Amino acid sequence: MVMHDLKWSASEKKIARRVYEAACESMLARLVADFKAKAAAVATPSEMWAIEDHLHQQRRKIDEIFDYRYSQPPLVFARLIGEGHLDEAQLSGLSEEKLEIIRHFLSWMRRGS
Amino acid sequence: MVMHDLKWSASEKKIARRVYEAACESMLARLVADFKAKAAAVATPSEMWAIEDHLHQQRRKIDEIFDYRYSQPPLVFARLIGEGHLDEAQLSGLSEEKLEIIRHFLSWMRRGS
Repeated sequence: MVMHDLKWSASEKKIARRVYEAACESMLARLVADFKAKAAAVATPSEMWAIEDHLHQQRRKIDEIFDYRYSQPPLVFARLIGEGHLDEAQLSGLSEEKLEIIRHFLSWMRRGS
Repeated sequence: MVMHDLKWSASEKKIARRVYEAACESMLARLVADFKAKAAAVATPSEMWAIEDHLHQQRRKIDEIFDYRYSQPPLVFARLIGEGHLDEAQLSGLSEEKLEIIRHFLSWMRRGS
């Protein structure tokens, strides 16, 4: 399973791009909704600072996930599935080899958590 | 006007402490109200990140102002007056020498802005 030797066809690249965009939108939409609900409930400065800290962490997490989208797509897909932002069915069209790598990462991440 | 030679009587220290607490509460209350209004109007992720950035800056600014409360009280009072969180009348009870130093800083800051 040599990751950097994986070849991506034009149609697979298109699937990957579409999936990233949809997952990113889903993550952000969920985060915005969550942020607005939490902000509406804020009553004290410390609750406000807690939201700032949370947003900061989430921003870093999203950046971190997508940082690997060019170098390690299977890892990114596995992480998006693991966090509920992507369903394996959306990856239909990728080669079986890639899907297996993604499942492998996913089960490895789930054992670790 | 040698700042570190200023002597603070017990009653002046009490005034300073009361004024800091009131100003800090005023700044935070204003910030929380502003935050809640802005958060309620958020419609996009970038608007949410802009709020995070703004909160981060405000937090640093507040920390920065109060960092000097022990070493340079007149500077902190001047800044609080300059930003509308403190009225000079609340400093009544401080020596005329200290009030003059505060006014001096305030006019100096206002010339600079």
